[in-house]
Amino acid sequence: MADPASEMPPEDTGPSADVDLTLIAALAGAVDDGDAASVARILAPLHPADIADLLEQLSGEQLRTLVELAPEVLTGDVLAELDADTREVVTDELHPSQLAAAIQDLDTDDAIEVVEELDDDVRQQVLSEVSNEDRAALESGLAFDEETAGRLMQREFVAAPEFWTVGHTIDHMRAHGDDLPELFFEVYVVDTAFRPIGEVPVSHLMRAHRDVQLADIMLAPKVKVTPETDQEEVAYFFEKYHLISAPVVDEGGRLTGMLTVDDMVDVIQEENKEDLLALAGVNDAGLADTVMQSVRSRAPWLLVNLATAILASGVIALFEGAISQLVALAVLMPIVASMGGNAGTQSLAVAVRAIASRDLTSANARRVIWREVMTGTFNGLIFAVVMGIVAGVWFQNLALAGVIAIAMIINLACAGLAGIVVPLGLKRFGADPAVASSVFVTTVTDVVGFFAFLGLAALVLL
Amino acid sequence: MADPASEMPPEDTGPSADVDLTLIAALAGAVDDGDAASVARILAPLHPADIADLLEQLSGEQLRTLVELAPEVLTGDVLAELDADTREVVTDELHPSQLAAAIQDLDTDDAIEVVEELDDDVRQQVLSEVSNEDRAALESGLAFDEETAGRLMQREFVAAPEFWTVGHTIDHMRAHGDDLPELFFEVYVVDTAFRPIGEVPVSHLMRAHRDVQLADIMLAPKVKVTPETDQEEVAYFFEKYHLISAPVVDEGGRLTGMLTVDDMVDVIQEENKEDLLALAGVNDAGLADTVMQSVRSRAPWLLVNLATAILASGVIALFEGAISQLVALAVLMPIVASMGGNAGTQSLAVAVRAIASRDLTSANARRVIWREVMTGTFNGLIFAVVMGIVAGVWFQNLALAGVIAIAMIINLACAGLAGIVVPLGLKRFGADPAVASSVFVTTVTDVVGFFAFLGLAALVLL
Repeated sequence: MADPASEMPPEDTGPSADVDLTLIAALAGAVDDGDAASVARILAPLHPADIADLLEQLSGEQLRTLVELAPEVLTGDVLAELDADTREVVTDELHPSQLAAAIQDLDTDDAIEVVEELDDDVRQQVLSEVSNEDRAALESGLAFDEETAGRLMQREFVAAPEFWTVGHTIDHMRAHGDDLPELFFEVYVVDTAFRPIGEVPVSHLMRAHRDVQLADIMLAPKVKVTPETDQEEVAYFFEKYHLISAPVVDEGGRLTGMLTVDDMVDVIQEENKEDLLALAGVNDAGLADTVMQSVRSRAPWLLVNLATAILASGVIALFEGAISQLVALAVLMPIVASMGGNAGTQSLAVAVRAIASRDLTSANARRVIWREVMTGTFNGLIFAVVMGIVAGVWFQNLALAGVIAIAMIINLACAGLAGIVVPLGLKRFGADPAVASSVFVTTVTDVVGFFAFLGLAALVLL
Repeated sequence: MADPASEMPPEDTGPSADVDLTLIAALAGAVDDGDAASVARILAPLHPADIADLLEQLSGEQLRTLVELAPEVLTGDVLAELDADTREVVTDELHPSQLAAAIQDLDTDDAIEVVEELDDDVRQQVLSEVSNEDRAALESGLAFDEETAGRLMQREFVAAPEFWTVGHTIDHMRAHGDDLPELFFEVYVVDTAFRPIGEVPVSHLMRAHRDVQLADIMLAPKVKVTPETDQEEVAYFFEKYHLISAPVVDEGGRLTGMLTVDDMVDVIQEENKEDLLALAGVNDAGLADTVMQSVRSRAPWLLVNLATAILASGVIALFEGAISQLVALAVLMPIVASMGGNAGTQSLAVAVRAIASRDLTSANARRVIWREVMTGTFNGLIFAVVMGIVAGVWFQNLALAGVIAIAMIINLACAGLAGIVVPLGLKRFGADPAVASSVFVTTVTDVVGFFAFLGLAALVLL
């Protein structure tokens, strides 16, 4: 268990939202000079989260040098705070026995976070060097799938039978203080089969009289979480019911672990990051990624985009004759496609967000689809007028102005439809609506945009 | 203060991540039939968060009917759980005295959330009907800017002098249980001037012996928050230091309020939603928005997009001669622009995310800019080869294949540069990097893409 004193930041530095630039420069300088004493002196007074932030600012090479110079800086708390990419660089440099020593002070959930990304053979070596008890806890946590409650829960929690009084419970906690988790927020009330039947917030326990029974002040559990529950679902429960901690029960309904809100905040941030990156066509991204890692995470979506762009070009190629007769078509056609793409992306962002927050369901999907199509159509009308005037003035061609106006309405209406139907469709087929939606939607808006504009032009103008 | 019993969901329904479709249908049916008794019966057993979720699924008209049929359903807890759009519809229908009655059971932060969006005259009427004490608390909260800690903090917290013992503190809480906040997680230790000098997690208090002094077990405060601190900064502190609650101090350093993690989770979700929508060019969006509200929040960005699309078309117009000589140029040019737009959006998403999480700072900006440019260049090389082969085979023109290949490299390198420099530049000028970045970046990739491809073609091919 972590020493509470180690979590105190020094009075003089004071916490700040932004990383301290002079500190980064000082640390980088000390590392470049191979000055182990300065490295230790700079990091000693800092909170583990601040040390992690500083280390994340170093280059991969500086980081490796630092680990060699001052491996004792990489405590379990610091390892747990590092982002996955930086941690990978660090754990590659540390010896398995150093890793084993670092993680033994951590709660199970934090220790699992550190060891789960290790290579199999390194993880085996680390596990062989921790205590039997820790190894059993880690192995049973690792047995659950990634991104489930089982990986995030800690084995340390406080439970008491319903017939205990407040006084008895407090006395018991005083007597067994060392076995309790570092922090807890609720006492779980269990029946004789160790199934949770209620929970008492610690603040309620504190103000109740000593002779009150737990059964009389307990609240019914708000959610039922098993180790297999998806972390996104658990985070949603925490957000919705304003939970601080939640019990996890096994198949038999017996209490087996505890989830806490700080881990759920991390999950929420992780899921939001994934959605935002997925919408932009990036598989995964860390700031410490190398060029090659970045290329690997982005090239696949660029390839998909190339395929759809070639498809759209195929539509243009159908109308080569029209374009060679009237080059203005080539000048104007990207405008129709661009406006459609933008309108589609707007609908898509609204839809992805509403699906993620569980507000968009099959109950209101029809109404929202209708709203999106009407919004697209109405915006289409607005920009049909604007663009019709621009095109008419620019090319002195009324028929051309009419064609681009009608194409604009058609494409923006289709954009609104595609922007909502595509993510809903992906969700229905069990896929993540944020991933791939973007490509499908812009394919629709490119193809429809070029086809509507060039097709109408070929019909009307030539 | 809320009655704990009202927070218990019934045993039989059980919580679920998704809204129950049969419940929605039943509720909508009862509302359409004007059946007040059924409405009340359906909602009675539900948790306020679940009631809010159901109401958010109704149409505006159904919602207004429901408020008329069963205004007693809109308790303070339900109002606090509703999303802003739905709440607006509801509060427009309720009488100020009904609103005043509903909010008086809420903690200050939740009550402020309900009244802050009311029209000025309605808010005045509501405030005139609550107790003097509540009015003073609400008015002082409302005096702080929106999106600051002052708006989010509650006035209810637990403080104790450092010389108190654990036993004395617990006895005091037992004696004054009714004046304490419904939930709290730390006791703040204050000096004689009521300045917080430490905090004791309730779970530590619980396991310490009765004769231990608070001064001996308190932890140093991890952060310093004032009512003026921006909510995004506060949420970042909570996330970074895994806080559950934090004290808020006034100018004199005196303890004045408490922030809790559940409110910070809402802030984090709100900020993430804003970033995602801003990147897609949507100012604000709620699922209950009407078509006109949606048009208003999206048309401005479509107008900006139209302007930049016309700019890009102006570039194409410079090369009308080249296009009329070789129509293949018109067929291929959108591919170069589309690939650039996609690569730029990828860089942009990575940058916006890294800025939001404070990982991208001026300390590592140079390295990340270099990484993005190299990633763009490398992806440019890959897709130059692919697209060169496609164009060569398609149009049987080696020079054209070479031109599109070189244009692809130029545009993807510029896309990588623009994707990171634009948001960093906006941030330096104090603007939100998520807003407007997208438009700037795609303008760059469109203009560069068309200019590089058509310009090279005009030089080499004609």
